[in-house]
Amino acid sequence: MIIQYHLGTGEDQLQAVRALIRGWGFRVQPNPGEAGGSPEASIQVDNVFGNVNDAHRREVAAFDCVKSVIPIEGVPQNLSLIRRGMHHSVSIPLPGGKGEVTIGGGKPLVVMAGVCAVDAAYTLPSHQMAKRAGANINRGGAFKPRTSPYDFQGLKEDGLKVLTDARAEVGLPVVSEILDVRDIDLFMKYDIDVLQTGTRNAQNFELLIEVGRTGKPVLYKRGFSNSIDESLKAANYIMEQGNDKLIFCLRGVKGIGHSFRNQGDLDEIISLSQTIDRPIVYDVSHSTGRKSGVARAGAMAAAGGADGVLLDVHISPAHALVDGFQAIDVEEDLARMIKVWRQLHTIGRALN
Amino acid sequence: MIIQYHLGTGEDQLQAVRALIRGWGFRVQPNPGEAGGSPEASIQVDNVFGNVNDAHRREVAAFDCVKSVIPIEGVPQNLSLIRRGMHHSVSIPLPGGKGEVTIGGGKPLVVMAGVCAVDAAYTLPSHQMAKRAGANINRGGAFKPRTSPYDFQGLKEDGLKVLTDARAEVGLPVVSEILDVRDIDLFMKYDIDVLQTGTRNAQNFELLIEVGRTGKPVLYKRGFSNSIDESLKAANYIMEQGNDKLIFCLRGVKGIGHSFRNQGDLDEIISLSQTIDRPIVYDVSHSTGRKSGVARAGAMAAAGGADGVLLDVHISPAHALVDGFQAIDVEEDLARMIKVWRQLHTIGRALN
Amino acid sequence: MIIQYHLGTGEDQLQAVRALIRGWGFRVQPNPGEAGGSPEASIQVDNVFGNVNDAHRREVAAFDCVKSVIPIEGVPQNLSLIRRGMHHSVSIPLPGGKGEVTIGGGKPLVVMAGVCAVDAAYTLPSHQMAKRAGANINRGGAFKPRTSPYDFQGLKEDGLKVLTDARAEVGLPVVSEILDVRDIDLFMKYDIDVLQTGTRNAQNFELLIEVGRTGKPVLYKRGFSNSIDESLKAANYIMEQGNDKLIFCLRGVKGIGHSFRNQGDLDEIISLSQTIDRPIVYDVSHSTGRKSGVARAGAMAAAGGADGVLLDVHISPAHALVDGFQAIDVEEDLARMIKVWRQLHTIGRALN
Amino acid sequence: MIIQYHLGTGEDQLQAVRALIRGWGFRVQPNPGEAGGSPEASIQVDNVFGNVNDAHRREVAAFDCVKSVIPIEGVPQNLSLIRRGMHHSVSIPLPGGKGEVTIGGGKPLVVMAGVCAVDAAYTLPSHQMAKRAGANINRGGAFKPRTSPYDFQGLKEDGLKVLTDARAEVGLPVVSEILDVRDIDLFMKYDIDVLQTGTRNAQNFELLIEVGRTGKPVLYKRGFSNSIDESLKAANYIMEQGNDKLIFCLRGVKGIGHSFRNQGDLDEIISLSQTIDRPIVYDVSHSTGRKSGVARAGAMAAAGGADGVLLDVHISPAHALVDGFQAIDVEEDLARMIKVWRQLHTIGRALN
Repeated sequence: MIIQYHLGTGEDQLQAVRALIRGWGFRVQPNPGEAGGSPEASIQVDNVFGNVNDAHRREVAAFDCVKSVIPIEGVPQNLSLIRRGMHHSVSIPLPGGKGEVTIGGGKPLVVMAGVCAVDAAYTLPSHQMAKRAGANINRGGAFKPRTSPYDFQGLKEDGLKVLTDARAEVGLPVVSEILDVRDIDLFMKYDIDVLQTGTRNAQNFELLIEVGRTGKPVLYKRGFSNSIDESLKAANYIMEQGNDKLIFCLRGVKGIGHSFRNQGDLDEIISLSQTIDRPIVYDVSHSTGRKSGVARAGAMAAAGGADGVLLDVHISPAHALVDGFQAIDVEEDLARMIKVWRQLHTIGRALN
Repeated sequence: MIIQYHLGTGEDQLQAVRALIRGWGFRVQPNPGEAGGSPEASIQVDNVFGNVNDAHRREVAAFDCVKSVIPIEGVPQNLSLIRRGMHHSVSIPLPGGKGEVTIGGGKPLVVMAGVCAVDAAYTLPSHQMAKRAGANINRGGAFKPRTSPYDFQGLKEDGLKVLTDARAEVGLPVVSEILDVRDIDLFMKYDIDVLQTGTRNAQNFELLIEVGRTGKPVLYKRGFSNSIDESLKAANYIMEQGNDKLIFCLRGVKGIGHSFRNQGDLDEIISLSQTIDRPIVYDVSHSTGRKSGVARAGAMAAAGGADGVLLDVHISPAHALVDGFQAIDVEEDLARMIKVWRQLHTIGRALN
Repeated sequence: MIIQYHLGTGEDQLQAVRALIRGWGFRVQPNPGEAGGSPEASIQVDNVFGNVNDAHRREVAAFDCVKSVIPIEGVPQNLSLIRRGMHHSVSIPLPGGKGEVTIGGGKPLVVMAGVCAVDAAYTLPSHQMAKRAGANINRGGAFKPRTSPYDFQGLKEDGLKVLTDARAEVGLPVVSEILDVRDIDLFMKYDIDVLQTGTRNAQNFELLIEVGRTGKPVLYKRGFSNSIDESLKAANYIMEQGNDKLIFCLRGVKGIGHSFRNQGDLDEIISLSQTIDRPIVYDVSHSTGRKSGVARAGAMAAAGGADGVLLDVHISPAHALVDGFQAIDVEEDLARMIKVWRQLHTIGRALN
Repeated sequence: MIIQYHLGTGEDQLQAVRALIRGWGFRVQPNPGEAGGSPEASIQVDNVFGNVNDAHRREVAAFDCVKSVIPIEGVPQNLSLIRRGMHHSVSIPLPGGKGEVTIGGGKPLVVMAGVCAVDAAYTLPSHQMAKRAGANINRGGAFKPRTSPYDFQGLKEDGLKVLTDARAEVGLPVVSEILDVRDIDLFMKYDIDVLQTGTRNAQNFELLIEVGRTGKPVLYKRGFSNSIDESLKAANYIMEQGNDKLIFCLRGVKGIGHSFRNQGDLDEIISLSQTIDRPIVYDVSHSTGRKSGVARAGAMAAAGGADGVLLDVHISPAHALVDGFQAIDVEEDLARMIKVWRQLHTIGRALN
């Protein structure tokens, strides 16, 4: 750890902290600062060498004279590109044992497309359209976390049934969001292929632990204001359960003065693919929040090295139960954008 | 609702939207904009009058030419100051049936002080110190949501036992955070007086519903990046269960370039007390994140009209399991700040 | 304008506001809200029709009962895609009257590459390298706005001389940042081809007016926390001087928890190209702040429809006076990325 | 400085960096990290001891393997509480040589009140009202930075005349905002007592240098998204001109989901008063943006230790040229709030 002291800390205070640390068997290396280098005031810094853990840091931080304690740490080992040596893929079995879809690890772009909220009438034809246009996976929400208690909350178990009945017809695996630890059995009963955890539950650690324990592929969505560091630590709750099928999904963040529904975090595709080994997906529908932004957001994600693109489709957006205005509804449009995305993905690789 | 169209929307597109709306029996009032008033381009706006619900808004929003649909709504009725006519208080029974502590509704400032994380050795003496210094309620965490899976996660059930054993000695009610819907029975078994929901669970609606159903007082903490509007809608999940013992707690938000651990949201004390009827508490320890900020943050909260102040205390911060560096540890300091806060709270009332 | 009243506004207060407005000869259309549509409290809204200007809005806003006054306005006409009918290009003459570089209006991707801060030894060879690798314009800063008064502030006039001497050799036009209205004559004396205004001066309206008056092409950089709306209004100060050679440059914004130096605003390329007629440039060096992010950020910008990419190059980054760590230094790397960007730009057009 | 290397940096790369540094005569102390302390990956860190300057840091940062270079620095010495030993005040002469107003350094709360934009009819009576209610200084804007070029830009020189004519009658010093380096002579001609620099010019360093050179008291307003660190460095441009009459003004920042016009930064009063020696003022009108927030925001600022409160008053807000809706217009209201603020300020001192 690195210890930063408040301006004006006295020598006796410094010695008290250092005595404690040395008592643990660690070495302390004071950094006298840069006396002559800057007319700005120095801050006293100590470097500590040894097997430091959280309890040590807490004890040091409790001193009045200590301004901050900076841990020396980085990407959790379970997801670290450097530790794991290469980008890894996640495979998702196709229904009926007919092969699998593989995402990440240098594989071609995977497109996940389906209805935002499952409904009885439109889910099947919408998912069929998505497949014809080139999608590899269908998404569909049966449980919807809604900002207000008066908004539509999803078809729940009926929705999972509609979604998996459609799967049997369409032949693509499905991803669906889980909101409650008590629904794990239900998701297993319907054999949902990829469990999605949503942005509002990005630090609901109990839920992350339970989805991790299922051993199923998990699509982890970044919290709308979580730093990348917080996000990786939270995602690591899933992997710590022995589940190495984590897929990391970006979906835009809260920001100031942006034009779309969320501030896009497209550039994190670059940084994440340089630091973690996990497949990276970009949600073009929830980041932009409008149909007219989807095609080009997907173009950017694909050209920049995302492993997958997630989007809403619906053959009749006016009848969509949630977020119809951001769903792509014309098959030719969808087919063209998926085709262009795949071209861009291939060409963009020259820059990886 | 108010409908905003994209620039350049054609007359035929407008008519299609309006025909749909009129078909529902609503009136549409086009706003032609301010042709002569500004050299900046007009946006076409329609006002719709009638019993509009979420499904109507979705259907309108699905039109390509519609830029946004603005609902005409405000503070949820359950919490609305104007609807409920006055500020309401929440009463929390003292242990052993010896009266109660009342917060809000114009009552004197309530101070909630205790250890951030319950430990076996220091909880009782710390809570005794808090009581002697003038606190009305003790806080203590048995379940801790931690950013990394390797951090200390709390004593769990043992912690609830330590906390409630201390309660029996100290004689003050206790507030403690609940993280998981499966722990509701446990919190009821130990008869925790106030259930706290944390910032990471601010939109974990399943948890909010379940704590609401207990009928217990609930301390709802604002999400670290939730807007006030989102926060009130989420808090309303609790009240919608028939639970009118909601206490709203501010604790700072994420921000850019601030000095303390979080960007303080002290000014929301003003706006909330002008719009909701609920008691408002400010968490001075988690907003500032350091001991040296606590006294004056509490002074501001009290002078500005908060009904309560929440803070960490610990008689031996170096041994605190979590966040010791922000805990107040000297009894005279604590007693002085509580006394000054109460003076400021009283004087500040002249400006309400 | 739309007027939103505070909850609980009385009928007499409403009538006072409406009487004033009707006295101006405008019509007022009250919106009674959605009485039955939502259990959330209604807010009273009035729509006003007529030639409303800023003074009227101020007068209405001064009423106690008025919560907000929403102007009905949008993109300034000078930059509005819908008003101007098509995307327009800006042409920049090549040195010695040997043709011109054209950016925007559907033209091929323009690459602006050069040293962040002009230095005597490395500017010429760095700009020659950029040209050989395929750049169309050279950038180079002679005046540097620096956060601290002790940081290097640029070579100033000597820098303009070095930059334009290099221009004579290289044969590409140059873009350089101007900080002070008193330097306009100097920039004209050295005939700087494109005047750049920086993020810290994004609302320094005096400077924007003066660069507008020169009639020169202007590269306007978005303020690091200005909304798109504020940015377009500020950029319009330039165009209001009769200067239609405005180029709009995105460069990342302040944000929370991002990995790169700034939070990328790549998605604004999409929204801006759908609303303004101006050429759009993305600064890949200042948005990412590190060399390893440049290639793929440029890939995204190009695939998403930017008209230009701006980046730092330097043949010896260790000797760069400012921001060397983000400069591309290997010619083959630069040549490959420019080539791939141009491919992506062409293919991405299929989605415009 | 502290050097942080990218994960996976090889030993040879480390040695290259260290050789360079040792070549400068500095010592390098590698920090091997916390191998056993955390299952999260280590980052290699080097500490460098010696007279490091900006050029050294740049050179190190240019290495590919270097992730970041952290300077060891803090509050600029010119403003540092610890360096300057105590809080210092700034004195502003009263018109006609009749004494002075002193702000900061433990003096009673100073109230700066006046019209947001100077107008011919209302400035004098508004400033007279402010004085009767207890204000110490009058504020009034003659030059207004406005987001759109079509908004009212102030009366300019005529405004300075109106403002100073009123000063002669009222007998209080005046503060007024300057936007353009070319107006310095004008402000000196009218002998404006305190030059204010606005939030949009918070990093317009040319302007800061010129106002610093006048030797006049300067009210420096924090940029709406500048970090405290950036703000102090920018303010230091003023003090570096030999001007020690800097007053630091907070006025709210951009944020996410807040209720008032800006996200209040009240808690920075605490942190700044613990780190800088300068008087601190809080602008309650521009931070809240509405009249109903002013009284209590001022209560918080005063109780929390601000040295001054800045606010808009106008005897006829409906006729105010700018921001009338946030101006206090009733003399008794103003007198009561100022009186309560002063009480709170005095009592709050017990916690300093």
